Amino acid sequence: MDDRIREHAAILVDWSARVDPGDNVVVSVADGAHDLAVAVAEVLGERDANLVATYDAAELTRAYLRARSDDSNDSDDSDADSTPPAFDADPAYELALLEKADVYLRLDAGHNTAATADVPGPTRQAYRRSRTAIREARMDTDWVSTVHPTRSLAQQAGMAFEAYQDFVYDAVLRDWESLADEMAQLKTILDAGSEVHIETGETDLWLSIEGRTAVNSAASVAYDSHNLPSGEVFTAPADAEGTVLFDIPMTVDGTRLQDVRFTFEDGDVVDFAAEQGEAVIAEILDTDAGARRLGELGIGMNRGIDRVTDRILFDEKMAETVHLAVGRAYDACLPDGETGNESAVHTDLLTDMSENSRLAVDDETIQRNGRFRWEEGFATDST
Amino acid sequence: MDDRIREHAAILVDWSARVDPGDNVVVSVADGAHDLAVAVAEVLGERDANLVATYDAAELTRAYLRARSDDSNDSDDSDADSTPPAFDADPAYELALLEKADVYLRLDAGHNTAATADVPGPTRQAYRRSRTAIREARMDTDWVSTVHPTRSLAQQAGMAFEAYQDFVYDAVLRDWESLADEMAQLKTILDAGSEVHIETGETDLWLSIEGRTAVNSAASVAYDSHNLPSGEVFTAPADAEGTVLFDIPMTVDGTRLQDVRFTFEDGDVVDFAAEQGEAVIAEILDTDAGARRLGELGIGMNRGIDRVTDRILFDEKMAETVHLAVGRAYDACLPDGETGNESAVHTDLLTDMSENSRLAVDDETIQRNGRFRWEEGFATDST
Repeated sequence: MDDRIREHAAILVDWSARVDPGDNVVVSVADGAHDLAVAVAEVLGERDANLVATYDAAELTRAYLRARSDDSNDSDDSDADSTPPAFDADPAYELALLEKADVYLRLDAGHNTAATADVPGPTRQAYRRSRTAIREARMDTDWVSTVHPTRSLAQQAGMAFEAYQDFVYDAVLRDWESLADEMAQLKTILDAGSEVHIETGETDLWLSIEGRTAVNSAASVAYDSHNLPSGEVFTAPADAEGTVLFDIPMTVDGTRLQDVRFTFEDGDVVDFAAEQGEAVIAEILDTDAGARRLGELGIGMNRGIDRVTDRILFDEKMAETVHLAVGRAYDACLPDGETGNESAVHTDLLTDMSENSRLAVDDETIQRNGRFRWEEGFATDST
Repeated sequence: MDDRIREHAAILVDWSARVDPGDNVVVSVADGAHDLAVAVAEVLGERDANLVATYDAAELTRAYLRARSDDSNDSDDSDADSTPPAFDADPAYELALLEKADVYLRLDAGHNTAATADVPGPTRQAYRRSRTAIREARMDTDWVSTVHPTRSLAQQAGMAFEAYQDFVYDAVLRDWESLADEMAQLKTILDAGSEVHIETGETDLWLSIEGRTAVNSAASVAYDSHNLPSGEVFTAPADAEGTVLFDIPMTVDGTRLQDVRFTFEDGDVVDFAAEQGEAVIAEILDTDAGARRLGELGIGMNRGIDRVTDRILFDEKMAETVHLAVGRAYDACLPDGETGNESAVHTDLLTDMSENSRLAVDDETIQRNGRFRWEEGFATDST
């Protein structure tokens, strides 16, 4: 086994999830994540934790959801008129597994990123909605998502497999404490701020962040951060006004999205368009009321991730980008007792900030053309 | 996908497990069982059942158990002096998953039948003992074990892969109702009988079955039968006296067993030996008090299985064989309220009855040289 797989497993268990002896750990294994799962099982054994592995292969999900669908021979996702199946709400056995779990480690992988592309949209939405309590229980654990490199993901990134493996391990096997120190500066500014203004190209967006708490996402539950790799600072906007163009392409639910545009009024998406994948965007926005409001503003700060690979886990951490998610807000960003935006979805979309851009908090420029004000190359305010 | 995989999945879900709409189904997926898992997911979707898939790859278990072991660098299974790790008893999350499940489908497969051969014996025993309630909860569901053919299993059987696939599907895709009718004859005899006498070669064994109920194992929970394929009639002996030679070789816990001999006195194994694998036999017998007593007498009646393939699921169903298991007895064989032999283990061992043999119930010959008395070729009592 590649030594880097063992290092990945050790960082996941120790730095990210902070697993203690006796912890009940669920390891979700995607098809193709076998080697990382074996390495994680070994580290969990060394830490005297308990282990249950679930098999979350996309092809199983696809077969199950298509069979559940009333209209399983219809692969046209845009057919919003078909009646979705009536899924049982939060089956008790799966809910109990997660409610009694301390840690949930998602090992993503897969052999085909389009494996679920022919699941009817209404079925997918209905399935999501039926699993709200399960999702909440999972998010109440010390959960961490990571990715094991496969040829399919390399293909999605347009990279050779070995080069993609190098990319993944460069992003994962980092000095996380040092990055956490750097990101703390931005967290301080956002925590004190009331309003964020993002300008670049067609984007001109105002976000209210009054009273919200930013997360210094340093790839560890100790930082309220649940992704490995990470390297972003994010918060939960309370309100949004203006327009945004997401010019970084990505794949959601097996479908390619390109140049998605949203217009916000009073926090709601009131108009949208996309060069590609508009039907998938429409499905997501129609999931529930919260799916039309923002759950997250994230600012990428990981300069170790130097290219888009069409995998949100990596792309959203890339320096010189910002991302917004429609749907569910993370509790860590909210004042105690306050519920933020609630939704069955959380879909991130990305905007390039590397050129001709300005990110301001309460009218003070924090980043210009991708450079933060504490970085070399930051252009002083001259406009 | 091979149509036979879909047929296998449909028999498993419908004939064997009798899955109803809304059932909470756990599907245990071994490494290499992906295709069958996809087919099972599809059938479960069609039946409107719920699905949780667990990943039970032997390499995960091996990595976890070796890491838990105090002595994980010691691959010598015979080192009974090493202290086994202290496993948590029945972790609550896994127990809850199974207690709230209605159906448990085990899809066995694997890429290396020796994958766990270097797990220290005391660790394996301690792990088994720590999971008694989990095992009971699993056996309280409508559980069914089946096997998806892999190249590793073909190798174990000494067969080409395609020939092995044919073997498996010939055994699985059968007319189960018709076999059930045939097996009912033997069940009637065993239910009425008090004592079984098995004679062949070095074997001369007396078993008490007074008051016990035989199971007509027709590959369906409706017959208290939990294997697919099946095709045996089995009961739970209350007592045993005499000697038995298990002359059909097999692999247990990744170790080859050959010519195992047991001597019973008052139901206990008081002496044992093996040409090969004696250390593994010793470990099994030392697991707990019940591991030295019999939990099962099974009589193979499936003439569709015409060769030994070193997989207990198939071998023990083969016509012209009998098998005995040390360890746990099945509740279905016991009078209401009576507990039979209890143990953390249930290990089957096989004896060839095809030649020079006699199986009698209460001194009446039921089978001679592999032929039952209702079959053509049965030799009348002339000795």
